[in-house]
Amino acid sequence: MTNETASKTRRGRPPGDGKQRLDTRDALVRHGLEVLTEQGFSRTGIEQILKHLNVPKGSFYHYFSSKESFGLAVIESYADYFQHKLDRWFTDERLTPLTRLARFIEDARRSMIRYDFRRGCLIGNLSQEFGRSHPMFSERLEQIFNDWQCRLKTCLDEAGKAGEIDTALNTEQLAAFFWIGWEGAVMRARLTRSDKPLLLFADTYFHLLKK
Amino acid sequence: MTNETASKTRRGRPPGDGKQRLDTRDALVRHGLEVLTEQGFSRTGIEQILKHLNVPKGSFYHYFSSKESFGLAVIESYADYFQHKLDRWFTDERLTPLTRLARFIEDARRSMIRYDFRRGCLIGNLSQEFGRSHPMFSERLEQIFNDWQCRLKTCLDEAGKAGEIDTALNTEQLAAFFWIGWEGAVMRARLTRSDKPLLLFADTYFHLLKK
Repeated sequence: MTNETASKTRRGRPPGDGKQRLDTRDALVRHGLEVLTEQGFSRTGIEQILKHLNVPKGSFYHYFSSKESFGLAVIESYADYFQHKLDRWFTDERLTPLTRLARFIEDARRSMIRYDFRRGCLIGNLSQEFGRSHPMFSERLEQIFNDWQCRLKTCLDEAGKAGEIDTALNTEQLAAFFWIGWEGAVMRARLTRSDKPLLLFADTYFHLLKK
Repeated sequence: MTNETASKTRRGRPPGDGKQRLDTRDALVRHGLEVLTEQGFSRTGIEQILKHLNVPKGSFYHYFSSKESFGLAVIESYADYFQHKLDRWFTDERLTPLTRLARFIEDARRSMIRYDFRRGCLIGNLSQEFGRSHPMFSERLEQIFNDWQCRLKTCLDEAGKAGEIDTALNTEQLAAFFWIGWEGAVMRARLTRSDKPLLLFADTYFHLLKK
C-alpha cells in the first residue's frame, strides 16, 4: 500500500463489521483483487464483495465513486504488488540475470498451483475482457505492461553484460515478446488447470535467448 | 454450417422479421459470433442480440435451451470457420510450408485491422474469461486449441521435409508455443489497437524457427 492510499483510508467511515477505519478501503481492494483475478470485472458484483466483507454500500461509495473507480484501485494495487515482485527477482544480484528470470517464472508457477489455477494475471484478464472498449482501463493496462517490459529489458541487458546471452540480441524486442507470450501461457494454464503451458513457454523462451 | 445444424434450423419457427426459417438459427449464431468476439460472454445480453435481429425470445428458446447452449453453438461455428481458414492456408501446396504460416498471420493481421482491433480470437477471449470455471466451455476450448496445434505441427513437419527448418526441432513443442504466444499477441493488439504485437510476435517466432 502506498502512503497516499493509506492516507485516503484514514478519512473513511467505520465499516459495518467494526474493523478499524484504516482497514476498510484496504480490505475492499484486497478482496476485489482476489475476486477480479478469478472471475474478471463484468461477472463481479459489488454486492458480492460487500457481503463477503460485511461492509455497507454507503461505506463502499465513500471510498469509490463507481465500480469503475474501484476497478482502477484494484488495478493500481496489483500493479504495485507486481512491480515489487519483479524488482525482488530481477534485481537480485546474488543470482545471474537469466537465473533471476527463471526464478520469477518458478515463483509464478508455484503461485498458480497454490490457487489451483483459478487465478491468472489480473492485467492480462482485464486486457482480454475489455480490449479498447474501456479506454480508462486500457491505457493504464498498457502502461503497466510497458513498465514490466522495461524491467525485463534491463535484466536481459545485464544478461548480455554477464555473457549469458549474445549482446547482439534485440533485448527490447525479446522483453516485449516475453510478456506477450507469458500472458498467453498464463491463460492456457488456467484453461487446462496445468503448469505445462508455463513450463513449455519458459523452456522455449530460454532456448530462444541462448541459441 | 454443418448438415446437422442446417437440419435443426428447418424445424424452427419463423423469426419476427419474416426471414426464412432456415436463416433464424444461423442469423442468431452469426450475430452472436460478432458480439461475443467483441465483448465476451458475460457482458453480452441475449436481449441485445434478439433486438438487433428483431427475433422474439420464444424463437431463441426454440433453438437454444439456455444462453450457455447458445454460447456453445457460437463456439462450434467459430471452430468450424477457423478450421477451414487454417486448412486453406496450411495445406496450400503452391506455397512453401513457412510461407503458408506467414500468409495465415498476414491474413489474421489484416482481419484485425479491418475490424479496428475490436475483435480478437473468440476461443482466446472465452478461455481468458472463464478459465476452468465453466467446464462445459473450457473442455471444448482446449480441444479446439489442440486441433489448431496439430494442424500447425503438420505444417512445421512439412517445413522440415522441405529443408526450411532443422528436422531436429521439436515441432510439437514449437506448434504449442505458437498458439500460446499468438493468443497473447492478439490480446495485446486489441489492447493497444495496433498490429505491432502481431508483427513482433511473428518476427521473433520465425527467428526461433530459422536459427
